[in-house]
Amino acid sequence: MKGLWLENQQLQLRTNIPTPEPSSGEALVKVLQAGICNTDLELIRGYYPYQGVIGHEFVGMVEQGPSHLLNQRVVGEINAACGNCRFCHQGVPTHCENRTVLGIVNRNGAFAEYLTLPIENLHRVPDNVSTDAATFTEPLAAALEIQQQVSIDANQRVLVVGDGKLGQLVAQTLALTGCDLLVIGRHRSKLANLEERGIKTGFSDTVTPRNFDVAVECTGNPAGFDLARTSLRSRGVLVLKSTYAGQLTLDASSLVVDEITVIGSRCGPFVPALELLAERKINVESLIDANYPLTDGLKAFEHAQQKGVLKVLLSLD
Amino acid sequence: MKGLWLENQQLQLRTNIPTPEPSSGEALVKVLQAGICNTDLELIRGYYPYQGVIGHEFVGMVEQGPSHLLNQRVVGEINAACGNCRFCHQGVPTHCENRTVLGIVNRNGAFAEYLTLPIENLHRVPDNVSTDAATFTEPLAAALEIQQQVSIDANQRVLVVGDGKLGQLVAQTLALTGCDLLVIGRHRSKLANLEERGIKTGFSDTVTPRNFDVAVECTGNPAGFDLARTSLRSRGVLVLKSTYAGQLTLDASSLVVDEITVIGSRCGPFVPALELLAERKINVESLIDANYPLTDGLKAFEHAQQKGVLKVLLSLD
Repeated sequence: MKGLWLENQQLQLRTNIPTPEPSSGEALVKVLQAGICNTDLELIRGYYPYQGVIGHEFVGMVEQGPSHLLNQRVVGEINAACGNCRFCHQGVPTHCENRTVLGIVNRNGAFAEYLTLPIENLHRVPDNVSTDAATFTEPLAAALEIQQQVSIDANQRVLVVGDGKLGQLVAQTLALTGCDLLVIGRHRSKLANLEERGIKTGFSDTVTPRNFDVAVECTGNPAGFDLARTSLRSRGVLVLKSTYAGQLTLDASSLVVDEITVIGSRCGPFVPALELLAERKINVESLIDANYPLTDGLKAFEHAQQKGVLKVLLSLD
Repeated sequence: MKGLWLENQQLQLRTNIPTPEPSSGEALVKVLQAGICNTDLELIRGYYPYQGVIGHEFVGMVEQGPSHLLNQRVVGEINAACGNCRFCHQGVPTHCENRTVLGIVNRNGAFAEYLTLPIENLHRVPDNVSTDAATFTEPLAAALEIQQQVSIDANQRVLVVGDGKLGQLVAQTLALTGCDLLVIGRHRSKLANLEERGIKTGFSDTVTPRNFDVAVECTGNPAGFDLARTSLRSRGVLVLKSTYAGQLTLDASSLVVDEITVIGSRCGPFVPALELLAERKINVESLIDANYPLTDGLKAFEHAQQKGVLKVLLSLD
C-alpha cells in the first residue's frame, strides 16, 4: 500500500508498504482522511525516535472488524493498551506502560491506505458529522483533556497562549464553560477567527500579570511558557498542552512561593469530542488551510511546516 | 534592642535596633528562641532582596496584646495579611497580595529581642510542648502544607528526596498517613534518624524509576529535582518544597507525555502542627544540632551553613 514513511528523519512516499494485518481484537481500517499535527512535524525534526508510517488524526472505514463497525466511518483513540498493566487495570489506557501509539510509538500510523487499531479504540462517526470535521476528533479530545484535569467554570479567568491549531480548539472548548477567557496569539487572522466566535483575543502585551486563575500553554516555546507563568495569580494552574523542543528553563522558586500548579496534558476523551462536533458547538472547518491527496503528502508537509498555517489534511480515495 | 541585621548580604549583630512598636491589631512579642532555616541562609546569599532583622521560626512571650495571650508562650504565622485583597477575602492570607513576611519581606524578623505580628497570626503554645519543640512549629506547618494540596493515603507510594531539616519533617508527617514511604538522602546519620522511626530510607540508587505516585523534592538542587521527577509514574505528582537557587532546567515534553503535576508548596497550617507536637507524634528534638545565644548569632550562622548540619537554634533570655 501507499503511505508516508519516516526513517532517519526523512519522510518518503512509499508504495510498497505491506498492508497491515489486524491482530486478534483489532480492526482493519481503510483511511479516508487524516490531519497533520505538530507532533508529526516534531517527529520529522527528530524530537522522538520513530520509524514507520506517521499520522494519528484520521477518519477511516472499517473493512475488517466486528459487525457493528463494519463499513462504518470511524475515528480512533491512538493509544493501543496492553490491558494488563496497573494503568489499564485503573481504566487509564492512555498511560498504559506497554502501549503502542498510532504513528508515534511502535505502530504504523494514518498517513497510509490502511491502519489497524484495537476495536475498543474505535468510535463510529455520527452521520451528521462530516469527514472533514471528524478528522479533528483526536485534537479536539486532547483539548477536552484540560477539563478532565482542571475544574473550569464561569467564575474563572483563563488565558490561552497560542492561536495555532491546538490553541484554537482549546479556546473554543474553554469558551463553552463560560469562563472569562482571553486568547493570546501573534496572527491577526487567526485571532480574528476566534473573535468571530465571541472570544476575546489580544497580543502578549495585553496580559495583566498575576491576574489569571488558569493559563493554558499551547505554543511549545519558552516565551509562551513565560507569558503563561507570569499571567497567573498565586495558586494558579498552568496547563502544558504542547510538547517542547529541548529543555525548558524556569524559575522554580517562584512556583514554590506562589504555590503554582503545573500540569502536563495529553490525550483526551473521544466521546464528548464527537458529541461537540455532532452538536456543531465547535467550528473546525475554519481551521482547514489545505487538503492534499496522500500522493502529494510531501507537498502537504511542506505546506504544514510554513509559519502561520493551521490544519493541512491528507485525503485518500 | 539586640538583633541580627542583614544589609547588603552582610549579617551583623546590632545592639541599637529600635524595639518595634505594635500597630493597631498587632502584639509585641519578646522572642524566647528562634530557628535558622534555609531561607535565612538564602537571604544572606542574596537570593531575595531584603534588609532588616531576619528570622521567622520562633517562640516568644506576648508582652503587649490581648489579655488571652498576655504573658503566654506563642508561635506565629509569618505572613501578615492586609485583610482586603482577593486572597484575604478568600481566606488565604498566606497569599495576600500586600503581605509582609516576618524576616523575609518588609517586616523585621525573629532574630532579635522583640518582634511584632498581627494578633490573629499568633497561636498559644500548649503547656506540654517545650520551647525547643515549639520552635519547629513553622517548618512543621510547612511540611503539613503538602497534605493540604495533595491527598495522600495508605495506598500510595511516596518518595521524599532530601534528608535535611525540611526533609526530616516532611518524612515524619507523611509517615503518619500510612503511605508506602521512601526517603532518599546522602547522610547515613540523618537517614538513621528516620530509620529509627520506622521510615524506609536509601541512597539515590535505590529509587526505581516510574514507580512513585508522589515525590516531594526537599533538596532545592537540580539533581534532587531530576531524581524526584524520574521516580514518578505517569500522572504522578511532584511537590516542590524547597526554593531553588537560580533557574531550573527540565524536560517539559516529558511532563506533557506523562501528564505529570508539579506543585509548589510553601507555608502551612499552624494548628495541626501544634497538635502533632502536643501529641508527640513528630520527633523534633533529634533535629537540633546546636543552640547559641543570640549574641553568638554570627557563629550560629557559620555553624548552620556547614554541610550536613540540621537545626541550629538561637536563644534569648
